Amino acid sequence: MLMRELKWSKSEKDVARQAFDKAYLKECQAIVNRAKSMIAKISNPREIWKVEDYLFDERKQTDEKYNFRRSMLPLVFTRLIEEGWLKEADLKGLGEDKLQMIRKGLQINRS
Amino acid sequence: MLMRELKWSKSEKDVARQAFDKAYLKECQAIVNRAKSMIAKISNPREIWKVEDYLFDERKQTDEKYNFRRSMLPLVFTRLIEEGWLKEADLKGLGEDKLQMIRKGLQINRS
Repeated sequence: MLMRELKWSKSEKDVARQAFDKAYLKECQAIVNRAKSMIAKISNPREIWKVEDYLFDERKQTDEKYNFRRSMLPLVFTRLIEEGWLKEADLKGLGEDKLQMIRKGLQINRS
Repeated sequence: MLMRELKWSKSEKDVARQAFDKAYLKECQAIVNRAKSMIAKISNPREIWKVEDYLFDERKQTDEKYNFRRSMLPLVFTRLIEEGWLKEADLKGLGEDKLQMIRKGLQINRS
């Protein structure tokens, strides 16, 4: 089955949205922590632009990664699990069709 | 006399460079302080992008403002004095031709 052919029930959409938002907030919090630590270590004020570089790159990266189009979600969740922003348990409530795609993605990327 | 016709002695260039760098560091330090305070006040991690917006705008603005081309320096110093990043005393050692241009700029902008 192709990802774009998956049917998502209302409760699956809710599970997906919740997991998606949880991962996004977790990743944003990590970015907040890193930026805070970078700023705390600044010895020359010009180094503020390193923080700007960092935040600019993270924004681009997260904007690209957090794509809630349903046809993309299995890929997005695979990546979020790989990167540690989500656990498979956060996806409890998704149908086996979606979970299998995600597990297959994880296997392929690990091999 | 036009700005681009000004002649700058070695010691004037040194004074200009020192004043320019002093203002730049002062402004960067103010940006560091503001970013630090913004980050400290974040309650929702998504607000990190407001800090990114702020730093992005400040970088653009300072990159445009801190132009060390000698033909631009009197205008740059006028602006830095107006904005409080420099005092006229920081420019001690510049010739009267430059100081008069800067003072004239300040008068025009105040009127």
